[in-house]
Amino acid sequence: MRIGLLTSGGDCPGLNAVIRGAVLHGIKTYGHGFVGFRHGWRGVLDGDVIDLPRSRVRGLAREGGTILGTSRTNPIESPGGGAESIRRVMAEHGVDALVAIGGEGSLAGAKRLSDAGIPVVGVPKTIDNDLDGTDYTFGFDTAVEIATDAMDRLRTTGESHRRCMVAEVMGRHVGWIALHSGMSAGAHAILIPEQRVPMEELCGWVSEVHERGRSPLVVVAEGFVPEGYDAGLAERGVEGDGRPRLGGIGEYLTAEIERITGIETRNAILGHVQRGGAPTGFDRVLATRFGMAAVDLVTDRGWGQMVAIHGTEVVRVPFEEALVGLKTVPQHRWDEAKALFGR
Amino acid sequence: MRIGLLTSGGDCPGLNAVIRGAVLHGIKTYGHGFVGFRHGWRGVLDGDVIDLPRSRVRGLAREGGTILGTSRTNPIESPGGGAESIRRVMAEHGVDALVAIGGEGSLAGAKRLSDAGIPVVGVPKTIDNDLDGTDYTFGFDTAVEIATDAMDRLRTTGESHRRCMVAEVMGRHVGWIALHSGMSAGAHAILIPEQRVPMEELCGWVSEVHERGRSPLVVVAEGFVPEGYDAGLAERGVEGDGRPRLGGIGEYLTAEIERITGIETRNAILGHVQRGGAPTGFDRVLATRFGMAAVDLVTDRGWGQMVAIHGTEVVRVPFEEALVGLKTVPQHRWDEAKALFGR
Amino acid sequence: MRIGLLTSGGDCPGLNAVIRGAVLHGIKTYGHGFVGFRHGWRGVLDGDVIDLPRSRVRGLAREGGTILGTSRTNPIESPGGGAESIRRVMAEHGVDALVAIGGEGSLAGAKRLSDAGIPVVGVPKTIDNDLDGTDYTFGFDTAVEIATDAMDRLRTTGESHRRCMVAEVMGRHVGWIALHSGMSAGAHAILIPEQRVPMEELCGWVSEVHERGRSPLVVVAEGFVPEGYDAGLAERGVEGDGRPRLGGIGEYLTAEIERITGIETRNAILGHVQRGGAPTGFDRVLATRFGMAAVDLVTDRGWGQMVAIHGTEVVRVPFEEALVGLKTVPQHRWDEAKALFGR
Amino acid sequence: MRIGLLTSGGDCPGLNAVIRGAVLHGIKTYGHGFVGFRHGWRGVLDGDVIDLPRSRVRGLAREGGTILGTSRTNPIESPGGGAESIRRVMAEHGVDALVAIGGEGSLAGAKRLSDAGIPVVGVPKTIDNDLDGTDYTFGFDTAVEIATDAMDRLRTTGESHRRCMVAEVMGRHVGWIALHSGMSAGAHAILIPEQRVPMEELCGWVSEVHERGRSPLVVVAEGFVPEGYDAGLAERGVEGDGRPRLGGIGEYLTAEIERITGIETRNAILGHVQRGGAPTGFDRVLATRFGMAAVDLVTDRGWGQMVAIHGTEVVRVPFEEALVGLKTVPQHRWDEAKALFGR
Repeated sequence: MRIGLLTSGGDCPGLNAVIRGAVLHGIKTYGHGFVGFRHGWRGVLDGDVIDLPRSRVRGLAREGGTILGTSRTNPIESPGGGAESIRRVMAEHGVDALVAIGGEGSLAGAKRLSDAGIPVVGVPKTIDNDLDGTDYTFGFDTAVEIATDAMDRLRTTGESHRRCMVAEVMGRHVGWIALHSGMSAGAHAILIPEQRVPMEELCGWVSEVHERGRSPLVVVAEGFVPEGYDAGLAERGVEGDGRPRLGGIGEYLTAEIERITGIETRNAILGHVQRGGAPTGFDRVLATRFGMAAVDLVTDRGWGQMVAIHGTEVVRVPFEEALVGLKTVPQHRWDEAKALFGR
Repeated sequence: MRIGLLTSGGDCPGLNAVIRGAVLHGIKTYGHGFVGFRHGWRGVLDGDVIDLPRSRVRGLAREGGTILGTSRTNPIESPGGGAESIRRVMAEHGVDALVAIGGEGSLAGAKRLSDAGIPVVGVPKTIDNDLDGTDYTFGFDTAVEIATDAMDRLRTTGESHRRCMVAEVMGRHVGWIALHSGMSAGAHAILIPEQRVPMEELCGWVSEVHERGRSPLVVVAEGFVPEGYDAGLAERGVEGDGRPRLGGIGEYLTAEIERITGIETRNAILGHVQRGGAPTGFDRVLATRFGMAAVDLVTDRGWGQMVAIHGTEVVRVPFEEALVGLKTVPQHRWDEAKALFGR
Repeated sequence: MRIGLLTSGGDCPGLNAVIRGAVLHGIKTYGHGFVGFRHGWRGVLDGDVIDLPRSRVRGLAREGGTILGTSRTNPIESPGGGAESIRRVMAEHGVDALVAIGGEGSLAGAKRLSDAGIPVVGVPKTIDNDLDGTDYTFGFDTAVEIATDAMDRLRTTGESHRRCMVAEVMGRHVGWIALHSGMSAGAHAILIPEQRVPMEELCGWVSEVHERGRSPLVVVAEGFVPEGYDAGLAERGVEGDGRPRLGGIGEYLTAEIERITGIETRNAILGHVQRGGAPTGFDRVLATRFGMAAVDLVTDRGWGQMVAIHGTEVVRVPFEEALVGLKTVPQHRWDEAKALFGR
Repeated sequence: MRIGLLTSGGDCPGLNAVIRGAVLHGIKTYGHGFVGFRHGWRGVLDGDVIDLPRSRVRGLAREGGTILGTSRTNPIESPGGGAESIRRVMAEHGVDALVAIGGEGSLAGAKRLSDAGIPVVGVPKTIDNDLDGTDYTFGFDTAVEIATDAMDRLRTTGESHRRCMVAEVMGRHVGWIALHSGMSAGAHAILIPEQRVPMEELCGWVSEVHERGRSPLVVVAEGFVPEGYDAGLAERGVEGDGRPRLGGIGEYLTAEIERITGIETRNAILGHVQRGGAPTGFDRVLATRFGMAAVDLVTDRGWGQMVAIHGTEVVRVPFEEALVGLKTVPQHRWDEAKALFGR
């Protein structure tokens, strides 16, 4: 078989390891051939194809990013999209099956294509770890590791100045990165989109820590919304009381904590650094196994399914299992983390 | 309740995070008090006890090693050991329950104590990841990460000189560290105690890689035994053919690969570096959750059980589940890894 | 002698290594005693003193921050300041000499105290590497290393999306961190306070790189001012054309590059992460040697001098040598770096 | 001009950054062309040449090893060597000048070629930092950083078991890596080839530390020879008293320390890991500047010279300055380090 790979959505450490695992396993075990579509679904729609011989994927396990490039093009809604166009491009390039490596949007597209008869399987990808149907997605562990390392550093500068440090991490809709990196760094408060926390409670934790002579570390997911926060006003460029617009939730909290508690507070936004560079060993193994299993799935013509990890085993689940909704941080994990706040 | 903690066996990144998670959660959530026995079961037998107030565990999540010290003392077989001695020491120091953080030997001892009526729960610890009853143990992820980083480095020096590099990692009885770090580093052969591999097959993989212009990387667990290797002779100081004794399996393979293939080959023994230093974020989260869950388990008087991770959830399992035998690398994981050898 | 140590100004990796080097060497080689003043000159003015026995400095070489705490208190201008107050506090606590570990402001204060007869020597400290009289200051190498690592990560995410990435690093008045981390990461443009660069030239470099199919990396020191940039307007909350205020130079450039070139551009502010955490080996060695040499200097009653590194040798220079002005990036270093821009 | 680059001797982090700096600067600033000779002087003798266009050196600043490969071939003594052969190969391939990136042996060869009229300049390379004429060579800082990180890890496992840890680092003839990494890690003894230390003195330091409740860390350069050590006997496979041969100085010291002090002692050989992988920022900057300056030197026809760093400036020195002898650790640096032993 001739298999086409594509990477779609935001980039994520481990994408290259998926590509490498798929190509090496597919060529050696089954004698498949491989091509890559460039820049996600856009490459599929445009017929932008490159060959993927074994030599092209050497040494890729440890490389961040994706050699195929990525985009947020939707395979169906975009101009020129739809199952028929894709079927035609596949025929033109002699591609028998697709492996779509992408997040929720991409997998939803893949599901619609599969329903329309396109032979496609999926590899779940989200740095936010917010996909149902799999215990973990690759890239998440690397993001947590990078954030943990940054927070270890922020803590020493905080302690030297007796400051409160606020670290803003990724997570627009779910708090997994904040939860794990915050727990890992021994944060005194972790704020996630799933849980509203009043400013008074947060400032209580901060003050409690400061009074014991320590420097509070607050970890906040970018999508956290404190009780009483008027995001609309913030976006229009002014706070309710006329103070100038603040860049993000991290800056907002920094100003508010300093105003309410009187404790000198500084902000750090970890930003894009969290999604780049060499993956951790955990993510390389997971991504390699996903890539290999996706090729097994294609070989078995398991269209409409994606690979996933349950415990220590790589399994297959229908696309719809990953699309039932965001995998948010459950209440018992929040309670567990919260038991360590403010000490 | 007044709870006694102890760490036993080889040290492992994450031990301090377990201690911290247990103490912070136990004090804040339940009002328990904590003491630590020094140097594992030896401290229990000798009554070598230190207080563990909240201030003592601050900042410990990221610290390698164990502030309690450790030893390989057996709680029952050692002079002065046995359930009665331990009951007496506990009474003397007002300790109501024990949390034993240790590997197979320690948990076997804890089981016998529990059977004899001592209130004890367990936290599984093994850098080798060879305990049944739990998907992972803390320390393993850190060891894999350290080994992966070392192999990334070995590969560049190998490529510059067109050498074969042999990296020996920990794993006397099981190959988990070799399997994961080798897969992560893109090794061309991984050798584990669970699988005998003839030297000819290994040299075939090595030569195949070298002929394609690349530098082979061989990862070997210290407990691997090649077919035809006479360990007895090796230990007595001479090989069968009178060549001088070689230090370990890594050195043996290095000499044999060079002799058979004619390819310049170099050896690196990662050694004790693998078990020291700051834990990864993954291990800090796992260890913190284990420490917290162990205190919940004590509070529920769940004697004779240990905490474990199944998928993403921390659960409780009876000691005997972890003691049914070593968790070895299963055949399908070996087959999966082997599909990438020698390319 | 009884020697008082203090750390002053912004924190910096290596402060603890200075303290450790001074105390261990001073006790063992000369039999001196040591105390630490807490929170910089504030502790000197307030008599906030802690003992520094050998046991207090163990393991400190690798710890970021400063166990003494720091502040920006000026020893002379602050309320309660001045040579007489300090002389009195020193007498009260039996302190024979001061070692002031600090930046330009602190060394200027130390010079005035020395001129007034206070027995004080200095250890130069600035993460920005902007002090004359010494080739390097500790902390700078660590900051460059952290920034380099972050940029390695930014590059892979940039390449995956074909974006331009803008990384803002520390350096309000000098561009050393930007110069070294940018050169180290292979940046396509480096912007420093010492050199004004028109937006057209910058955008030319960016477009040139993008047209060759690569993702431009722009490194900017926080104090860089592009030609035509009206900082006054920016600070008042609006740009000249009414666009909303932007957070810093990094955000400004990001918006401008995207507007002018049409290339998708993203911003990352490395921020406080650059000054925290474990020092590099280079900085630990430099800081340890500085601490030891400062004690030699005290022992020799070399008041009014500070330690410095010239080539590979630690030397002594009068305070005034470090106070002649900021050590800026010289023209030939700028020309050297610029030769690699935009390729 | 058409310039030929070659890398010779043991590999070293930063070689690729030299190549990249030379090629980018040479093409852009002067319009030179570049080729690379593969596997050091062997490629020069065999005419094994590859083109080095700008695209070939992209992204190389952070890559360990050398894309040109390396060997220990001597340009004059090897079969087919000598100035005439090299002149002929250069003419055949239209190469106007050579940039030899190598250590003492390679620079000695380059000097003889230069004396014979071959247009050649040098870039000094040695991970051991043992070349005179330059303050530092690239690769050394990376080796120190890797060793420091490993020792930080060894210390925590040592402390948990109250063991003495012996870390063997590179340095056959000089102790620079041991000196800097040992100082950086806070070692309790550092043993270098330049200084003989009796076993009793070493064991005194070790015992002193152990008695204070700490775990001694001993750092030893592979070329250290203790007083009374009979290397000849050791190499013949037996110690004087018939004990079995031990692998290296690290193993020897480990056995001896344990025998003499009774303290449990463990050994770690850092080995080839020290010379591989991504260079530190310091080494990337130094290597890039060296590569650029070598091209300036060629352009100025400064044959028979090499680039070097003095303080913060890149300078030019005649080959002979680097060949006066090994740059060993001077007495005052040993005394400085020793002042911290055994505390």
